[in-house]
Amino acid sequence: MPVVDLVADLGESFGAYTMGNDAELLKLLTSANVACGFHAGDPRVMDATVRACVERGVGVGAHPSFPDLVGFGRRAMDLTPDEVRTDVLYQIGALAAFTRAHGTRVGHLAPHGRLGNLVVTRRDYAEAVADAVEAFDPSLVILMQEGEMAAVARERGLRMAMVGIADRAYEDDGTLVSRSEPGAVLHDPDEVTRRTVRMVTEGVITSRNGTDIPVRTDCVQLHGDGPAALELAIRIRGELRAAGVHLASLDEVLGARAA
Amino acid sequence: MPVVDLVADLGESFGAYTMGNDAELLKLLTSANVACGFHAGDPRVMDATVRACVERGVGVGAHPSFPDLVGFGRRAMDLTPDEVRTDVLYQIGALAAFTRAHGTRVGHLAPHGRLGNLVVTRRDYAEAVADAVEAFDPSLVILMQEGEMAAVARERGLRMAMVGIADRAYEDDGTLVSRSEPGAVLHDPDEVTRRTVRMVTEGVITSRNGTDIPVRTDCVQLHGDGPAALELAIRIRGELRAAGVHLASLDEVLGARAA
Amino acid sequence: MPVVDLVADLGESFGAYTMGNDAELLKLLTSANVACGFHAGDPRVMDATVRACVERGVGVGAHPSFPDLVGFGRRAMDLTPDEVRTDVLYQIGALAAFTRAHGTRVGHLAPHGRLGNLVVTRRDYAEAVADAVEAFDPSLVILMQEGEMAAVARERGLRMAMVGIADRAYEDDGTLVSRSEPGAVLHDPDEVTRRTVRMVTEGVITSRNGTDIPVRTDCVQLHGDGPAALELAIRIRGELRAAGVHLASLDEVLGARAA
Amino acid sequence: MPVVDLVADLGESFGAYTMGNDAELLKLLTSANVACGFHAGDPRVMDATVRACVERGVGVGAHPSFPDLVGFGRRAMDLTPDEVRTDVLYQIGALAAFTRAHGTRVGHLAPHGRLGNLVVTRRDYAEAVADAVEAFDPSLVILMQEGEMAAVARERGLRMAMVGIADRAYEDDGTLVSRSEPGAVLHDPDEVTRRTVRMVTEGVITSRNGTDIPVRTDCVQLHGDGPAALELAIRIRGELRAAGVHLASLDEVLGARAA
Repeated sequence: MPVVDLVADLGESFGAYTMGNDAELLKLLTSANVACGFHAGDPRVMDATVRACVERGVGVGAHPSFPDLVGFGRRAMDLTPDEVRTDVLYQIGALAAFTRAHGTRVGHLAPHGRLGNLVVTRRDYAEAVADAVEAFDPSLVILMQEGEMAAVARERGLRMAMVGIADRAYEDDGTLVSRSEPGAVLHDPDEVTRRTVRMVTEGVITSRNGTDIPVRTDCVQLHGDGPAALELAIRIRGELRAAGVHLASLDEVLGARAA
Repeated sequence: MPVVDLVADLGESFGAYTMGNDAELLKLLTSANVACGFHAGDPRVMDATVRACVERGVGVGAHPSFPDLVGFGRRAMDLTPDEVRTDVLYQIGALAAFTRAHGTRVGHLAPHGRLGNLVVTRRDYAEAVADAVEAFDPSLVILMQEGEMAAVARERGLRMAMVGIADRAYEDDGTLVSRSEPGAVLHDPDEVTRRTVRMVTEGVITSRNGTDIPVRTDCVQLHGDGPAALELAIRIRGELRAAGVHLASLDEVLGARAA
Repeated sequence: MPVVDLVADLGESFGAYTMGNDAELLKLLTSANVACGFHAGDPRVMDATVRACVERGVGVGAHPSFPDLVGFGRRAMDLTPDEVRTDVLYQIGALAAFTRAHGTRVGHLAPHGRLGNLVVTRRDYAEAVADAVEAFDPSLVILMQEGEMAAVARERGLRMAMVGIADRAYEDDGTLVSRSEPGAVLHDPDEVTRRTVRMVTEGVITSRNGTDIPVRTDCVQLHGDGPAALELAIRIRGELRAAGVHLASLDEVLGARAA
Repeated sequence: MPVVDLVADLGESFGAYTMGNDAELLKLLTSANVACGFHAGDPRVMDATVRACVERGVGVGAHPSFPDLVGFGRRAMDLTPDEVRTDVLYQIGALAAFTRAHGTRVGHLAPHGRLGNLVVTRRDYAEAVADAVEAFDPSLVILMQEGEMAAVARERGLRMAMVGIADRAYEDDGTLVSRSEPGAVLHDPDEVTRRTVRMVTEGVITSRNGTDIPVRTDCVQLHGDGPAALELAIRIRGELRAAGVHLASLDEVLGARAA
């Protein structure tokens, strides 16, 4: 029986500003990437988000970012690897105070935005994130795509979960087509749903060149920004279950992979 | 044999800005209050400060503040108690990532600056800090003066350490004379040193009215901002030892008190 | 013919975060209070907001705040008067770069949130704001309610505009009933609209005690946060015009008052 | 008679943090680049710095930066050109409030740190800075080295001043040797002084390859961070005057160039 984790970015509100539809998304997820205050989130939002995750049995992960609130972590910053390592440590720790307060733990880590893009291509940043994980808790699962982060995690024996991004076009080598190229993002809900189900049940995705390539999909990334995104998330979840997929925590998914 | 902890505020540099003389102060201390990024400190400074504390066997405590970098946490902010609780949790957690990375733990908490003043007089803020401590780790020692924080800690059975502030005038009831009054701060190094030794060895301090009042002194607060402050810190340490005082960690001091 | 300015707070989005419905509000206004980056707003938002104001002939005013993004400027901060003066100067200047870039000028100033409340009751803060205005441009109109700010403006001969807050209850002396008291905020759109029209056309408002008290109303404050607020703003504007009120710029309103 | 402006970065303190020795540097300068709050500086520091410049007859320029306080503006950030333009506008405007308050004006602009490096090589950033200058005040003098910023300024007819960096090695084409290469920074005070005097009096500098290349030097950059830097600044000033160089404002220097 195929098994997968459903994850989304949560807790991205800040002060008087609301972002996303966390309450609805939470009903769909098995895991959440929780913002840690550097691109979004504040201590009240983090506290409420962790509490809500615990109430619904959703696993909590850290979603650390470059320190760029006004840019929402989407702009590259030329940090040294040591700055990446220490910024990531700071953010995991801050979130861990709230998981501790609510009787759970930080179970995974998913670098946000541009930092998340850069660990795919920059070996030094991937090493820096791995250093932070090892220093804080080597049992943390790192969410990632194929690339440098995956290479480093494999070398060090760190726990990793491959995230399926069904609304993005793939190259033949399993990496994502760059957003700057036409057709990088898929907009047809039918197609995105179909691709998601195939990723999870068959372990393949069709590349931009029409080739079926093998992909490992431990989690599926959902979005809740806007009614259309939420509707698509609900549909993907429904069709995965209809296809006999078991929705499970990251620990369960990785346990199933290891078995 | 009298026993006391020597503590100072460390890690208050930020980015390109240096504050204090941490390297020299570290040689004198048994504990450090480490800034957590809200009034001072950044992830690199926190990492380096915790590492240095571990190397010298100095205990690490969190020094959380109002979120006011430009004001260095010295300006009152009208936060709700829930904002205080969550801001404090965030900061303890962030520091705890670095203690974990360096193989130690956050052992105590000392609210910084204006927040530190306000927990003495505002019951709701004292409760908020106590809530954060209980949620994160009820074994944390809270550094304090007499007042609401002490009352709350006693009611809840939280671990507390009384900080002797030898360069401040005391009222007959054991509270500090307000800084707005003349004579609130003592500047004569001889007098400050003498008062410190008496606080620790005899358990009394002379109030502004000339009365010897009993004080419990678990830690002595030292300062390192400027050559004169550092010299005074060295002298106080020397005279305490000359008077037969054992300089010890907070755990040891509290253990001795309990014995 | 009665004349009044319609004003609202604009430009309170920040980075990836959207707040309010500026596009719709702009169709109703003659003046806008534009956030300057301390409680809301960022350089892109300020640029776009000023451009939109210029396109629609809406007057631009500065909306300076305490430096508290996460608190949206709603929390009191214990700044010195000199900190208030310099923070206000900084914010007016920042906004003035964008008015200059778009061929207009900062015509008025309306302290935001808690700072706006405090200049009513704190003489030193009212003086600090007046100092900033005089230093930057003594012809700036200050938006205010009765209180210390008004007293200082009168003493110094600064230009002032009284803001009518139709959805708030008034005391007999023309000050607002504190938000902490029941009935301080009025929620019935009929009542709020009626009160607004009376304020403007008759120059009176009924106090909480049922007394008609004289009020000078140079501007009416509108809100756009949420569909109900926007609908009420549209209705107030419509009924003011139906009552023969001329909607005009602050300069025109003050000119009419002076004539 | 050769004429040159002496400039340094001022106002880089922040809150409780002090940087540099502005009081001593001010005695040597004819112009100052004043930090605007994005990498350093705060409204109090800006106010005091502008006041001190006015008192000593030192010209005030804006020193805008990437928005990165913890990184002191030294880290590249992948801003869009529109983000550069609006961030620069915001910062010039903020500073201009203080020049207005003190009866002077912002006379020049010198992009700080990494932004200052990038306008040399990135055409889009140079255009963005030029756009900000044209929108705010086309008579602003832009301080620069050879490169894209200079090319854009020439094309648009903007006022420009070439900064001589005597402690940096030059390539044969008049650009600076990259800091990443050995020998990029010169440390011998004798050599730096000699090179400065030659730059100003003869209009040549010896490249790393030993070739004398022509350089236009409208201002000489001084530093005050540390006793050695200040001593060197004093010496350079003294030897320039001994060599018959007239120290003058940027306006005077550019006037002399034009004559």
